[in-house]
Amino acid sequence: MAIPILRAAISDSHVFFNSLSHTTRLLSIPKKTRLIDSASASASASAPSEINPLRSEVSFCVGTHLIPHPNKVDKGGEDAFFVSSYNGGVVAVADGVSGWAEQNVDPSLFPQELMANASNLVGDEEVNYDPQILLKKAHTATSSKGSATVIVAMLEKNGVLKIASVGDCGLRVIRKGKLIFSTLPQEHYFDCPYQLSSEVITQTYLDATVTSVKLFEGDTIVMGSDGLFDNVFDHEIVSTITQYSDAAEAGIS
Amino acid sequence: MAIPILRAAISDSHVFFNSLSHTTRLLSIPKKTRLIDSASASASASAPSEINPLRSEVSFCVGTHLIPHPNKVDKGGEDAFFVSSYNGGVVAVADGVSGWAEQNVDPSLFPQELMANASNLVGDEEVNYDPQILLKKAHTATSSKGSATVIVAMLEKNGVLKIASVGDCGLRVIRKGKLIFSTLPQEHYFDCPYQLSSEVITQTYLDATVTSVKLFEGDTIVMGSDGLFDNVFDHEIVSTITQYSDAAEAGIS
Repeated sequence: MAIPILRAAISDSHVFFNSLSHTTRLLSIPKKTRLIDSASASASASAPSEINPLRSEVSFCVGTHLIPHPNKVDKGGEDAFFVSSYNGGVVAVADGVSGWAEQNVDPSLFPQELMANASNLVGDEEVNYDPQILLKKAHTATSSKGSATVIVAMLEKNGVLKIASVGDCGLRVIRKGKLIFSTLPQEHYFDCPYQLSSEVITQTYLDATVTSVKLFEGDTIVMGSDGLFDNVFDHEIVSTITQYSDAAEAGIS
Repeated sequence: MAIPILRAAISDSHVFFNSLSHTTRLLSIPKKTRLIDSASASASASAPSEINPLRSEVSFCVGTHLIPHPNKVDKGGEDAFFVSSYNGGVVAVADGVSGWAEQNVDPSLFPQELMANASNLVGDEEVNYDPQILLKKAHTATSSKGSATVIVAMLEKNGVLKIASVGDCGLRVIRKGKLIFSTLPQEHYFDCPYQLSSEVITQTYLDATVTSVKLFEGDTIVMGSDGLFDNVFDHEIVSTITQYSDAAEAGIS
């Protein structure tokens, strides 16, 4: 069963990142319809233009949290994720398709093996730090029966976060208290997302949406399965995240 | 005055792209909660995995349209855009900040010069096909008084669309009748977007949100100022676009 839209019952895994704890407040206040007034002009002496995008080598500060669906607590849920410090950092989340339980297949096995394989392959020469190729090789190496939605994010040391996603796991980037980047779910129709599978009839790495976003120092990245994004509005995620400067604290909030 | 939220009065410019007219229908129908049934399995013989992402050199098919705000028709509006066939194709949209009129400055001059400069600089060696550096150099070269929100999209021949945006112009990518990528507006608060300006107190190229998305053959890209995205819901854009296989036709629909 997919996650119901219930604010109180956040299910599945979600992973919080904060590239660095340093944050800088916006001071410049130009207007769209009215020109710049003297008050905003004086306030903008240390404008956001002074915030340098990442130039030197960067890495993640990571906090993670997994809340199984209430009906799946005994098994620990059907999600899996991994975090790696390879290069600038790699994170992935996979969400097992629960329908396999009807065929007496444990839906958690496929995503767990997929994530274990992805974790082992992050430094693979052929992967070459390409999240889409990581999906390809991890999927090929997975022998468990089942299927999963999956998202992989790899941070290059120049600050570019490369993302490959199949299905309805998601990623948000929050910069200075505002949402500046969001992935969109891939689904055929409601409750029917794209997925990698042990069967040949579903999607492959070629169907992934492949995007990237250039990060700034202090950006916060929130990743998770649909269990997070179906149950918590983006503005709630933003307001929760901005209360914490430490990603590990935010992960358990 | 910014654009009111009126469905009937689409204002400002919007640009439609269709990388290639070829489209392929989805056939694979896996389920999130239920496993794959025989009907969907048989229908998925030619699954989306068979759709190859762009591998060879690609380019845009482009259609453009500019609808000035009803109050600005006599001057042709305060937006500007350009299209270039350089490399895989370059497109940019700039939206002049109307508040300059209160200071007897024509709000259309800054975006027009910004776009003219950007158009002249697309092949610049220092720009090196980086949309953020194009914004930097075009902004530096612009001497008109005024300010504008701006978005630049550059298609590499391997199919990666590189995007840099300052403010609330936007870009959408529609794949097989579904929205798969969207930029998010940058604004300090309602009606107060980030903007490049003749004044030193506003944003610079460093404040741009820099993203990329890997395109497939047949993807449609819709770019425009907030005049489009404030007045037309994404699902309306998608349903309109999917009625046309030709980007030029869609541009005037």
